[in-house]
Amino acid sequence: MDPHDLVVVTGRRLQRVEDVLDGWFDVASARGERFGSHHAHLIENLRRNTSGGKRFRPRMVLTAFETLGGGDLEIAARVAAAFELLHTALIVHDDVIDRDFVRRGQPNVSGSYRDRATTAGISLPLAEHRGMSVAVIAGDLALAGAYRLVDGCGADELTRGRLIELLDDAVSAAAAGEFADVDFSMHNTMPTVDEVIEMERLKTAWYSFEAPLQAGAVVAGAGLATIDALGRFGRNIGIAYQIVDDVLGVFGEEDVTGKSAVGDLREGKRTVLIAHAATRPEWDAVRHLFGSADLDQEDAACIREVLVASGARTYAERLASDFANRAWEALAEDSVPASTRAELAPVVRSVLERTR
Amino acid sequence: MDPHDLVVVTGRRLQRVEDVLDGWFDVASARGERFGSHHAHLIENLRRNTSGGKRFRPRMVLTAFETLGGGDLEIAARVAAAFELLHTALIVHDDVIDRDFVRRGQPNVSGSYRDRATTAGISLPLAEHRGMSVAVIAGDLALAGAYRLVDGCGADELTRGRLIELLDDAVSAAAAGEFADVDFSMHNTMPTVDEVIEMERLKTAWYSFEAPLQAGAVVAGAGLATIDALGRFGRNIGIAYQIVDDVLGVFGEEDVTGKSAVGDLREGKRTVLIAHAATRPEWDAVRHLFGSADLDQEDAACIREVLVASGARTYAERLASDFANRAWEALAEDSVPASTRAELAPVVRSVLERTR
Repeated sequence: MDPHDLVVVTGRRLQRVEDVLDGWFDVASARGERFGSHHAHLIENLRRNTSGGKRFRPRMVLTAFETLGGGDLEIAARVAAAFELLHTALIVHDDVIDRDFVRRGQPNVSGSYRDRATTAGISLPLAEHRGMSVAVIAGDLALAGAYRLVDGCGADELTRGRLIELLDDAVSAAAAGEFADVDFSMHNTMPTVDEVIEMERLKTAWYSFEAPLQAGAVVAGAGLATIDALGRFGRNIGIAYQIVDDVLGVFGEEDVTGKSAVGDLREGKRTVLIAHAATRPEWDAVRHLFGSADLDQEDAACIREVLVASGARTYAERLASDFANRAWEALAEDSVPASTRAELAPVVRSVLERTR
Repeated sequence: MDPHDLVVVTGRRLQRVEDVLDGWFDVASARGERFGSHHAHLIENLRRNTSGGKRFRPRMVLTAFETLGGGDLEIAARVAAAFELLHTALIVHDDVIDRDFVRRGQPNVSGSYRDRATTAGISLPLAEHRGMSVAVIAGDLALAGAYRLVDGCGADELTRGRLIELLDDAVSAAAAGEFADVDFSMHNTMPTVDEVIEMERLKTAWYSFEAPLQAGAVVAGAGLATIDALGRFGRNIGIAYQIVDDVLGVFGEEDVTGKSAVGDLREGKRTVLIAHAATRPEWDAVRHLFGSADLDQEDAACIREVLVASGARTYAERLASDFANRAWEALAEDSVPASTRAELAPVVRSVLERTR
């Protein structure tokens, strides 16, 4: 089960986030009068690429805000929407970096503009570059939108300053994590387990769990100890989530996870699972298969066997449990009210029981 | 002569901008403690790519601020530094879009990380993609930095809101202009002169002239009529500057301009000069040469002949004069104090007399 489904945020509150997002896109789109049809076109494309998500980060903001007794939903909704736009910006740019042209079965920003270019008769390599170019621009607009939403969230000066700092830290972390990930793929050496964990924490966990939870707490006017505990909860559960995700990327049932169990192995994705296996003698037998562009189902089965035999799978699953336990501990602190604990505990369980 | 050299901003004021920039980089770099060595590495690379510029946009901010009687230099310096970071963000991403790996004779962000990758034994195409990936991330950090600087500039709430709006409009305009430019190159049809002017206004003039001048005026507490007049001045002189730049890109003396007079023709850059020529029958003789990857000096000479014979060169030069005259008119308005006029008038002259 996905943690998304377990975080109970009342529909009314989440609807306010949708309204804020719609409002932002409407205003941005209407600015086409000043910035021309190209701007409006980009904004509508971004809108499509932002819709239909699970709103995980807004849910984190609102869960903290709601259970910590926050009063001004309007401010929380704007901050929640800002984290959704930040997410859009980061995945649009991440897709450029990964040269992905599809997300959730649909052409992403790069993909839709690539397709537009090939339809106009442009050769594929050039069309791909054009699509990626537009995606760079679109991501910039979404990133700017996140700052603009927090800037205009309506909180008092002190609160706004702290929210901007949380947003800014999340951007810096994501940038550092993305760069570390690019760096891993640039060298033939395998990163250590700790290096992989640090990369995943920076690249995803920070802006997805840690920062939105803390932002919701800040809007609610929570004390420093609570904000700190929620940060630790977010960091640890975020890392646990990522490790489980990586295990599922190799061992998950394709018809349950909805994604290929060969993709990660074929692209040579550096995960905790692989970083651990690579330190074991068993790995020598499959090292040449890992990251090979023509890796097939049979090769994948060989690697999986080694991942099990070398103890890497067990190691990764235990590591995920360890981080989930640290998340529990953060939740158990006195500074965290029972209602917050009750709301977030299922997230821990769902991460550990996750099979898709 | 470059307009940069004619805008007289006292050294002390410009030094404050350098201090703010240095401070921003120092703080960002020190955050490596939280975000790891990858973050610090990126920041130092961005610092190198921001240093040594002519600080044209900060000069615009400070000129408006200073001549309009602005009092709080600290605020103006932060806003000025924000526009410099925005410039860095936009050129770093523009270089990704143009697949440029060199700027001002030095490897740019993409170039330095590409070189690092090839040194590590990565094949060139992959290394180029890695370099561009890091540049996408670095540009995001610089863009976030621009927002952060304006957010924390210390102005009162109302002023800060207006400054963020100016920054935001500049980002939207630059994105729209960049996209229009990408779009031009995606189709075989030639844009009209008006379309090229609109693209250049959005892509460069807005964030380089219009927005910084208005931001300086806002910090100085100028009235709406003055801000409006400076906006019109900036827009028109910015367009004039760009048209002259495009003419020099084809007719300039390489040893004076410091850049190849063949590059623009070879890459098929859509400029006012070309958009006008393409509507004339004389163009048919050279149409096949324009944008050809193996265009040589002789081909370039043929195109130049046609640009002169068809009247395109004269047309472009007159158009630049027209826009410069509109800039004069904006400066001549009653709402613009004599000191501001005296400081900005040389910019108009320098654009018109520009030979490099």
